[in-house]
Amino acid sequence: MALLVQKFGGTSVGTPDRMRAVAEHVARTVRRGDQVVVVISAMGKETDDLLRIAREVSNTRPGREMDMLITAGERKATALLCMAIADLGVEAESFTGSQAGFLTDSTHTNAKIIEVKPDRIRASLAAGRVAVVGGAQGQSAERNVTFLGRGGSDTTAVALAHALGADSCELYTDVPGVFTSDPRIVTNARKMEHITFDELLEMTANGCPKPAMRSVEYARTHGVELHVRSAFTWESGTVVTKESTMEQAIVSAVVHDADEAKVTIGGVADRPGVAAHVFRALADADVNVDLIVQNTSEQGVTDISFTVPHGDLEKAVAICETAGAEVGFTSVTAEPAIARVSVVGAGMKSHPGVAATVFETLAANDINIEMIATSAIRVSCVVAEADVERAVVALHDSFGLANGPVYVD
Amino acid sequence: MALLVQKFGGTSVGTPDRMRAVAEHVARTVRRGDQVVVVISAMGKETDDLLRIAREVSNTRPGREMDMLITAGERKATALLCMAIADLGVEAESFTGSQAGFLTDSTHTNAKIIEVKPDRIRASLAAGRVAVVGGAQGQSAERNVTFLGRGGSDTTAVALAHALGADSCELYTDVPGVFTSDPRIVTNARKMEHITFDELLEMTANGCPKPAMRSVEYARTHGVELHVRSAFTWESGTVVTKESTMEQAIVSAVVHDADEAKVTIGGVADRPGVAAHVFRALADADVNVDLIVQNTSEQGVTDISFTVPHGDLEKAVAICETAGAEVGFTSVTAEPAIARVSVVGAGMKSHPGVAATVFETLAANDINIEMIATSAIRVSCVVAEADVERAVVALHDSFGLANGPVYVD
Repeated sequence: MALLVQKFGGTSVGTPDRMRAVAEHVARTVRRGDQVVVVISAMGKETDDLLRIAREVSNTRPGREMDMLITAGERKATALLCMAIADLGVEAESFTGSQAGFLTDSTHTNAKIIEVKPDRIRASLAAGRVAVVGGAQGQSAERNVTFLGRGGSDTTAVALAHALGADSCELYTDVPGVFTSDPRIVTNARKMEHITFDELLEMTANGCPKPAMRSVEYARTHGVELHVRSAFTWESGTVVTKESTMEQAIVSAVVHDADEAKVTIGGVADRPGVAAHVFRALADADVNVDLIVQNTSEQGVTDISFTVPHGDLEKAVAICETAGAEVGFTSVTAEPAIARVSVVGAGMKSHPGVAATVFETLAANDINIEMIATSAIRVSCVVAEADVERAVVALHDSFGLANGPVYVD
Repeated sequence: MALLVQKFGGTSVGTPDRMRAVAEHVARTVRRGDQVVVVISAMGKETDDLLRIAREVSNTRPGREMDMLITAGERKATALLCMAIADLGVEAESFTGSQAGFLTDSTHTNAKIIEVKPDRIRASLAAGRVAVVGGAQGQSAERNVTFLGRGGSDTTAVALAHALGADSCELYTDVPGVFTSDPRIVTNARKMEHITFDELLEMTANGCPKPAMRSVEYARTHGVELHVRSAFTWESGTVVTKESTMEQAIVSAVVHDADEAKVTIGGVADRPGVAAHVFRALADADVNVDLIVQNTSEQGVTDISFTVPHGDLEKAVAICETAGAEVGFTSVTAEPAIARVSVVGAGMKSHPGVAATVFETLAANDINIEMIATSAIRVSCVVAEADVERAVVALHDSFGLANGPVYVD
């Protein structure tokens, strides 16, 4: 008998038919002899609908009230799923985040989990029931309802799996697992059977949309085994665990992120404190700076380039222009049409040729590299947005990912 | 400075525009110097929508889960109204029934209030805020979410007004107050300025749909002043208080109820225990028996007629047929097409001619009376359903209700 946390996203429970299909899977798991805790998101586009009506009703939209509003979506979904499970002769009980013991800070609309005390969930399991918990929600010390933010249901599932000591946290979604690249671009992208936390974290940080990066970090920190799999075909998906000592793929996946823009500040005086001044000003304005590259200094001046999400570009340019007037640099230029392609693999740590292969592959395809950044298990290149899909396909092909992983000797 | 509880029904907050209109009224009241606690129902047809999706998802629909589901509707409405109030520069905080301190029994889908401990509401008022509470909801001793049933928001408002010692409980609705009769049938029906709890209770028990009877009983028991008024024109409505010793209207209103059916059991042996056997069987089957009339006994046998809601007719007939076989009576007949018309007035206690005027009026209009039942302040007649609207108009006219109340000398 295993204790499983099963998390279902909004698409997986988007219609009454889907609700019943999920209920059947939960009942099947229970009949197999396992204990199940379900974490569920709001149905389909319900969260978007709630955000829309809030905009129609109010201009101020205080965070406390937004959280009270948004969390109603998951609450509805928990109750409906319990009803559908009950139809199959299996007892189920719904719980709000507060009832499930999620204590959070008071940062409304984007709260952080402080502690999980799942006493009522344990009692529900002990009584032979399925516990169904509303995702992405909790209660602050002031006993106000809080929302963990979009994608927070994955984090709820992982935190609950950790608090309960579950054997696995199954993240059900509308794709069959984690792929070697985006299947919409790379037609022969392959579903991976296994991947490490570090690899998945680099992938989610560099454009892979699911699961939510925050939940992968939580799972890595606490060693919660993840299983990313399909709520439509129910086939086995991708298992995510700590690094294996046995064999490590040199390159596991190619991911990309088209939501990038580049800012270059030119003629920066090459003396201490100038870069710090600029990036402190950007951080204070909540601009999410990603890659930063500083070119070699020539005659006491240098250029600094960095990338930001598209939505932050205008703000970033304005801040740089102000900072330029203060600390003195000659130009600020913005390039909105760029994208980042990244090659991720836990085995590249001990296999230094990967970066070279990346550069050669892009060069052979006439794709110019604007910026480069690397970590121990990742090589990222910023390229023109128009080139990014060709870059992804070429790199996927170049590392032979469609055929299965190439392991470190 | 007054402390007011203002309750808004689903139609009053059915659209974003309506939400903002209600927010403006609340802000107006606060600016006038009053403290306001708002109780709110789910928006428009949302409760019906939730019931529909529950039917689509599940056949069993356990009560605990239905309550978790349905109460999401009020929760959304509280948050949205708080946002709309915040836009007007007035601070507002939403509260679920549980947060507002409503402890109920565990009768899911139709819970009863055990106690109200509105500590957080008092704190919100003390901080100069408007507290917005979700109607018809609470928490059981087992810490499960409970729903008070349809129309439960009126009861929430009255119970909260009582617990807080509010000066008045304002029930805002889509009509301007309590009328002398149904304005859809009686074109010159008059809005009453004032009415007693006893009268309103008789009216709601005999077909007047608003406010919910249960809330009127609660208000009468605890002496909570009600003010039934319009959320569309904001004009002053009908104030409901304890009986006045000064002057009492002989007849205040004519109400009717078309959701009635009549069952007659004939040839009943006129000996003790037979009627008891029948009505115990009906009560055990949750058949809601209303009027009961027993005709004069002839030669040791008698007839008993009673009325039930239309929906219970089939069940009632089946139970009577079984009981007939057990205790021996000769016939069971059902008449679905009947209705009840009632004349209500606190002053008729000391003014015995009212029943006679009712009978004369109906006779003059060729309307046959099938059953009669009276209380100290009400005369009810069961008539053919086809006659009931004519009966209402004739009685309203006969007692001159369009012109204002006729008081007891």
